[in-house]
Amino acid sequence: MSKFLASELKALGASVELRELGKQEGTDVDLPPIVLARYGSDPNKRNILVYGHYDVQPALIEDGWNTKPFELLEKDGKLYGRGSTDDKGPVIGWLNSIEAHQKAGIEFPVNLVMCFEGMEEYGSDGLDDLIRAEKDKFFKGVDATCICDNYWLGTSHPALTYGIRGCSYYSLSVSGPAADLHSGVFGGMVSEPLIDLTHLLSKLVSPKGKILIPGVMDLVAPLTAEEDEIYDKIKYSMQDLYDATGSQTNLYETKKESLMARWRYPTLSLHGIEGAFSAPGAKTVIPAKVIGKFSIRTVPNMTPRELDELVFKYINEIWAELGSKNKMEISLLHDGMWWLSSPNHWNFEAAKKATKAVWNVEPDLTREGGSIPVTLTFEEELKRNVLLLPMGRGDDGAHSINEKLDLVNYINGIKTLSAYLHYASVEPTA
Amino acid sequence: MSKFLASELKALGASVELRELGKQEGTDVDLPPIVLARYGSDPNKRNILVYGHYDVQPALIEDGWNTKPFELLEKDGKLYGRGSTDDKGPVIGWLNSIEAHQKAGIEFPVNLVMCFEGMEEYGSDGLDDLIRAEKDKFFKGVDATCICDNYWLGTSHPALTYGIRGCSYYSLSVSGPAADLHSGVFGGMVSEPLIDLTHLLSKLVSPKGKILIPGVMDLVAPLTAEEDEIYDKIKYSMQDLYDATGSQTNLYETKKESLMARWRYPTLSLHGIEGAFSAPGAKTVIPAKVIGKFSIRTVPNMTPRELDELVFKYINEIWAELGSKNKMEISLLHDGMWWLSSPNHWNFEAAKKATKAVWNVEPDLTREGGSIPVTLTFEEELKRNVLLLPMGRGDDGAHSINEKLDLVNYINGIKTLSAYLHYASVEPTA
Repeated sequence: MSKFLASELKALGASVELRELGKQEGTDVDLPPIVLARYGSDPNKRNILVYGHYDVQPALIEDGWNTKPFELLEKDGKLYGRGSTDDKGPVIGWLNSIEAHQKAGIEFPVNLVMCFEGMEEYGSDGLDDLIRAEKDKFFKGVDATCICDNYWLGTSHPALTYGIRGCSYYSLSVSGPAADLHSGVFGGMVSEPLIDLTHLLSKLVSPKGKILIPGVMDLVAPLTAEEDEIYDKIKYSMQDLYDATGSQTNLYETKKESLMARWRYPTLSLHGIEGAFSAPGAKTVIPAKVIGKFSIRTVPNMTPRELDELVFKYINEIWAELGSKNKMEISLLHDGMWWLSSPNHWNFEAAKKATKAVWNVEPDLTREGGSIPVTLTFEEELKRNVLLLPMGRGDDGAHSINEKLDLVNYINGIKTLSAYLHYASVEPTA
Repeated sequence: MSKFLASELKALGASVELRELGKQEGTDVDLPPIVLARYGSDPNKRNILVYGHYDVQPALIEDGWNTKPFELLEKDGKLYGRGSTDDKGPVIGWLNSIEAHQKAGIEFPVNLVMCFEGMEEYGSDGLDDLIRAEKDKFFKGVDATCICDNYWLGTSHPALTYGIRGCSYYSLSVSGPAADLHSGVFGGMVSEPLIDLTHLLSKLVSPKGKILIPGVMDLVAPLTAEEDEIYDKIKYSMQDLYDATGSQTNLYETKKESLMARWRYPTLSLHGIEGAFSAPGAKTVIPAKVIGKFSIRTVPNMTPRELDELVFKYINEIWAELGSKNKMEISLLHDGMWWLSSPNHWNFEAAKKATKAVWNVEPDLTREGGSIPVTLTFEEELKRNVLLLPMGRGDDGAHSINEKLDLVNYINGIKTLSAYLHYASVEPTA
């Protein structure tokens, strides 16, 4: 995919470099290269940096896809396929914008600085280092950044996003016997790692979503009166949530509580267990080593290190209470910091005008529950405003089966990206 | 293997039939035939039924075998190879016994009725039906049954086995959203099935192995003074448990408690979760539907239906307490009944004398934690005592890599089987 992007960009006249990152830490596997490209170098134009990623979540047809996940299919006005909305569709959207200008004979309004990576779904290995190393080289002169890698809140109203939660992802392993055991022979004689792990996991969060780790909520910024007012204005309803999840399994009964849970409070999710029996059918095994995976979405003013300290301390305490002879290990797999920006910057104003021009409505100003850690890195390292300008809808199923991008979102998305670049170009830097 | 057995048995003068069982249910694959053979038909001799199986567990050298799993290798007094102890070695042992009598010119003491199947490792498909259909035909006149398909408790002392636990295997599913969700986007807004499931599973059994389902322990037969005395005599030590599990994660500190936990009390094991993230690495998914797998090993006087009722009632109660909007389903995947025989029957007395004659020790009288369902079918259908007379040791690695049978166990095993038949023949039926 990186080679495909490079060759398409070159065909459009951009300068391109595939930046190699070396091996993934602790492995013999080459990291996928980062595509660094620049289209235009007019000193009288603004330099707009756009970021996207060409890697995707894993997908197997056995997961429940209706069509082959890696063959793009257009059906009923939707483009189905892994990566359609996250994030291959939007990445291609930037290329489409260049191509559209060329075909229409319209001068491209800015110098487009492009950074497309291939490790976003696995923590953007190597990207932060590259941004830091290149901030006064490749990224020198960037006036603002636009990231097209998130979604409208619902399914009908465009949005601009000025905040995202962070994410700290933990691995909690419990091990006992040297190898898996037969539960008939050893069940009752030995301490089972999976029983211990289940007890630990059940003490992290309540079924009502309450984080049970003491101190975590104390790290959260208090709600201001100003913020308290914004939720009612957002175009979102409980029905949007029901539609997006295909269920009525909401934890809260109101839009406001739901949005606050998604945007401004931390949440703890359990993702799964590695090492236990996970296939269909029945197997009478006592798994020897099991690894629980959970993550905490973080918000202002939490810091990852403070959170780690609370998590590790609490898990060690509840582990001690179990009194198990098994071995427990808790570790952080990766983290990313939350981000909160100002939606009144000219970068956002340009996107508001573009949205109005293409969709004929004012965009919702939203925050995101999910994390895009690179957002913060770009803002902190380049000292320039970052805008999140989503292309897809809230029901696109980014990390799920049958991922899709509505065709109208793709086409109008390309128009919105293009219009944004035009509105962002009107006050060229000296 | 069935044809090899048939031809060897014919060469020894036995009458043999390869009984075809048709296709495996839901497939186009022929089930392996059951070898039904009879050696001798003297009406003045007892008819002893012996059972074994010629199929084996899967094995690949890549699993970690030191030698090719399907080439028998004798090394350091051990016979290595898949099936050496489970159960090809013991099956061949019966043929060796016939051959030994012929070569020594000694009259065979009983009529040997043989039933060797080829589906034991996959649930003995078709065997129960065959036993029921043939109980008044091929199996007519059987005076007692001997099954050579289990193991000594430890590695140094011969054993006879008179009890096995049953197993009831359950599936506990929780489902919510229509598809997996992104934990960043929806974490905190929706009720997560895996959080609910973890809470349910943690309420089934304590880390100390205590079953938390009310009423289950009330179904267990009380410990009699007589039984209470037997455990101390068993040749088994905590070191045997440490060696077998490669760990010191024992729930009990004494041999007696450990053996009681394995033999005479029910235990609940958690096996795993289907539908959650189970691969290495990190995935920020909220799984839409997760299925917990657990089983309860059953003992006298529990009945599967009474147990089901307690399990279903309790799980429905703790589910109601969670107050979740997700959907929960609990179901039984399969069950097998426990079996407990009398170790004072003449069938066992004959095996005790044989063990004493060959090994010069009294055998341990053991029960098994794991299940061999056909044991119960033979006893119930033929109404005759069943004896489990193991040939191999507790560390043979029956379902593991580097499966072996000690040469001394093989040779002395053949002698023990032969001596057993002689002692079992002394009170011929009229």
